[in-house]
Amino acid sequence: MSEKAMIDPAMVDRLAEVAVKVGLRLEAGQDLVLTAPTTALPLVRRIVAHAYAAGANVITPILSDEAITLARFENGHDATFDKAADWLYRGMREAFDNNAARLAISGDNPMMLSAQDPAKVARVNRATSAAYKPALEKISGFDINWSIVSYPNPAWAKLVFPDLPEDEAIVALAKAIFAASRVDQPDPVAAWNAHNANLAQKSGWLNGQRFASLHFTGPGTDLMVGLADGHEWHGGASLAKNGITCNPNIPTEEVFTTPHALRVEGYVSATKPLSHNGTLIRDIRVRFEGGRIVEAHAATGEEVLQKVLDIDEGARRLGEVALVPHSSPISASGVLFYNTLFDENAACHIALGQCYSDCFVDGAKLTPEQIKAQGGNSSLIHIDWMIGSGEVDIDGVAADGTRTAVFRRGEWAL
Amino acid sequence: MSEKAMIDPAMVDRLAEVAVKVGLRLEAGQDLVLTAPTTALPLVRRIVAHAYAAGANVITPILSDEAITLARFENGHDATFDKAADWLYRGMREAFDNNAARLAISGDNPMMLSAQDPAKVARVNRATSAAYKPALEKISGFDINWSIVSYPNPAWAKLVFPDLPEDEAIVALAKAIFAASRVDQPDPVAAWNAHNANLAQKSGWLNGQRFASLHFTGPGTDLMVGLADGHEWHGGASLAKNGITCNPNIPTEEVFTTPHALRVEGYVSATKPLSHNGTLIRDIRVRFEGGRIVEAHAATGEEVLQKVLDIDEGARRLGEVALVPHSSPISASGVLFYNTLFDENAACHIALGQCYSDCFVDGAKLTPEQIKAQGGNSSLIHIDWMIGSGEVDIDGVAADGTRTAVFRRGEWAL
Ligand SMILES: [Zn+2]
Ligand SMILES: [Zn+2]
Ligand SMILES: [Zn+2]
Ligand SMILES: [Zn+2]
Repeated sequence: MSEKAMIDPAMVDRLAEVAVKVGLRLEAGQDLVLTAPTTALPLVRRIVAHAYAAGANVITPILSDEAITLARFENGHDATFDKAADWLYRGMREAFDNNAARLAISGDNPMMLSAQDPAKVARVNRATSAAYKPALEKISGFDINWSIVSYPNPAWAKLVFPDLPEDEAIVALAKAIFAASRVDQPDPVAAWNAHNANLAQKSGWLNGQRFASLHFTGPGTDLMVGLADGHEWHGGASLAKNGITCNPNIPTEEVFTTPHALRVEGYVSATKPLSHNGTLIRDIRVRFEGGRIVEAHAATGEEVLQKVLDIDEGARRLGEVALVPHSSPISASGVLFYNTLFDENAACHIALGQCYSDCFVDGAKLTPEQIKAQGGNSSLIHIDWMIGSGEVDIDGVAADGTRTAVFRRGEWAL
Repeated sequence: MSEKAMIDPAMVDRLAEVAVKVGLRLEAGQDLVLTAPTTALPLVRRIVAHAYAAGANVITPILSDEAITLARFENGHDATFDKAADWLYRGMREAFDNNAARLAISGDNPMMLSAQDPAKVARVNRATSAAYKPALEKISGFDINWSIVSYPNPAWAKLVFPDLPEDEAIVALAKAIFAASRVDQPDPVAAWNAHNANLAQKSGWLNGQRFASLHFTGPGTDLMVGLADGHEWHGGASLAKNGITCNPNIPTEEVFTTPHALRVEGYVSATKPLSHNGTLIRDIRVRFEGGRIVEAHAATGEEVLQKVLDIDEGARRLGEVALVPHSSPISASGVLFYNTLFDENAACHIALGQCYSDCFVDGAKLTPEQIKAQGGNSSLIHIDWMIGSGEVDIDGVAADGTRTAVFRRGEWAL
C-alpha cells in the first residue's frame, strides 16, 4: 500500500504569510482583489486568513477553473469569443480606485489551451485584454500594492517533473516553489527583508553608474544593449503610489531596467528554452540592427517565434533587460518551470515588447510620448527570454566608452 | 475493500440541462452571472457547458468557499464586519441592466456560521444586503430571467442523513435533490412543462376567486391572512420583463401571493424547524395583531428569532403566503432538507419580510409607494417558514365573508 504524497500545509501557510506580509504588505483597511485557479484553493484559504488577520477590509476572491474555461471553447457559439465580462473588470478598476490591493495566484495548466483553435484563443485574449485594460493600468502604473505568487497545478507539475507519478510531481513542484519563494528558510519574512536589501544595493549601484549600454559576451552572444535615456534600475520591493512598498513578484531575483528601443546591436543566443502558449521554443538566436531584430532562428518553434515577432512593430524591439546571478536559488535548482515568473529569475534576460514606465527617473510623470522619445518601447506583448549563464560576462559601458565589469562568469563583479 | 459512493455524473448533467433550459431558459446572446460554492463545481462545470451550448455570451462564475468565509469571521478585524464588496455588486447590477441572466447554485453547509458570533454574522448580512440591494432589485423585480438550483455539500448531507457515512450521505442527498428537481424522470424537460401547467391551473383558479383573506386552522394555528389589494397568485414558470419565461426555483411546488402587511390576525405554529444562518429554530409560535408579530416564541433558537424580527419594521410583517399540498414529492419523501428551497416546497408557508412586487396585478407598473399602499411589505429580509401539514385546513374568505374550501387536511380542495 502506498500513501499519497501531500503538499506540506505548514509550508502553504508560510507562503500565504509571505504573500500578505512581503508580497502585498497589506495595510489594515485595504480591500483585496484576489484571482486564483480553483486548484490553488489550499493557498487561497490561508492567504485570506492572513489578509484578514492583517486587517483587510473585504477580500474578493475571483476563482477560475480549467474545465469552465475549456467548456467555453468547446461549446461556445462564435459570438462569445469576442466578448468579456466588462462589468467585472470595470468593478476591479473601481476597487483599485478605492485603494484595493491586488493579488494574483499563478498556477494554471500551462498547456490548458494547447488543443483549442488558436484563432479563438487570440480573440478571447484580445477581448479580455481590452476589458481588463483600465484595471491593469492601475496595477502596471503601481497606483496600488500588488503581487503574484504561485501554487502547483497537477498538469504543470507533470510538465516540470514528467518522470514522477502525479502526486509526487505536485509535491516536488510545491517544494521548488517554496524554495524559490524563500519560505523554506527559518524566518521567511526576515529572509525577504535581507534579499530586498541586497537587490536594492545592486540597483542603487547601477543607478549611480548611469551606463549608456551593457555589453553581453558569451557563447553565441555579442550583444550591445543601449539603455534608455533617463532609465532607472529596479529590483525587489517597489514603492507604490499609495505609499505601500510591495514585492510584485514572489519569487524575484532580478534587477532590471528599460533598454533603448533603437540602440541594440549584435547577436544573442538564448540559454534556456522559452515556453510560449504551449509551444517550447528552443535555441533562439537573433541579430539586432538599430534596436530591431532583423534575423531570428530557433531549433524548435521557429514558426511561433516568427509569429510573435510579427504581432506589432514593438514586438521586434526590447522592453526590458534584467540581471540575475547564475548562483540564484532558481538557477541552482536546475528546474525548468515552464513559467516566466520562475524561469526569468534563473538567468539574465531580455524581453521583447512593452517597457515598464516606472523604469525611468520620475517615470510616473512622463507622458507616453516622452517615454518613447527617451527610448521606451511599446507593444501588445512583453515576453522574457533567458540569455544568461555561468559563461556570460557583462560590461557596463559609459557614454565616453569607459568600461566597468558588471558580471563575470555569470556572477556580480562588484 | 469498499468502493466510495459517487454522485451519478449523468444525473448532474441532466440537472445542469434543466437549470439552463427550464430554470433560466437562457437565450442566445445573454450573459450569465452564476454564483456557487466551490463544493458545487461538478455541477457548475456542466451548467457552463450547457449555457455556452445554448449561446451564452459570457458566463461569469463567482465561487464562494466555506473556509474562506470562515477565515473572515475567525481572523477579521472589527471594521470588516460592516463592509461588503460594493464594486462587485454594482457590477452585477450593471450586468443585469444589460440583460444578463442570473443563476445561483445553492449548497452551502447550513451550519457554516453556527459557531460564529451572531452579532458579527448579522453585521455582515446587513452590509452585504445593502450592497447587493440594487442588483437584487433586478432579480426580485423579474427584470431578468433567473433561477436557483441546488447541489449537495458534505456537511449539508451529514445534517440531512446523520446516520450514513459521509460519501453515502452525499449520494443520498444528491438523489433526493435529483428527484425533487424532476431530473430522475425519463424526460425532465417534458416533466417540468406538465408540472408548470398544473401550477398555472391552480394559481389561475385563485386569481379568479379574488379572496380577501385566507383562514388557516390546525393544531396551534388559527390565522387570518389578509391578502394585499390587487394581489396576484403565481406558481411555477414566470414571465420576466425581458420576455423570457423562467422557473426561478428548481424545485418548486408552491403557488404564492402577497399578503396584506397590515391585515394579519391570530396565532400560528410552525410545522417544521427553520434553519437560519446555522441556527435551528424549532417550534416557532407567533401572534399577529394588525399584521405585526406582537409575540414570538420558539423551543430552540428563540434569541435568533427575536434578532431577526428586530432587523427592521418589515421583519415583523408578512411578505408572502404560499400553498403547497401535503402530498407534494418533497413532503412525501419525508426528508427534512434544512434548506428553504426544498423545505418550503414540502408545506404551506408564510415569509417574514420583503414582498414580491410581481405578485400584484400589473405589478411591474406599480411604484414602491403604490405597492405599500396596496399592502405590500418591505424589509431587508425574506425568510420563509412552514405552517402547513396534513392537519391544516384553509378557507378562502371573500370580501363579503363568503367562505370557499381551498385546502382540506393539507390537500387542494378544488
Ligand atoms: Zn524580468
Ligand atoms: Zn519581463
Ligand atoms: Zn415561497
Ligand atoms: Zn419565500
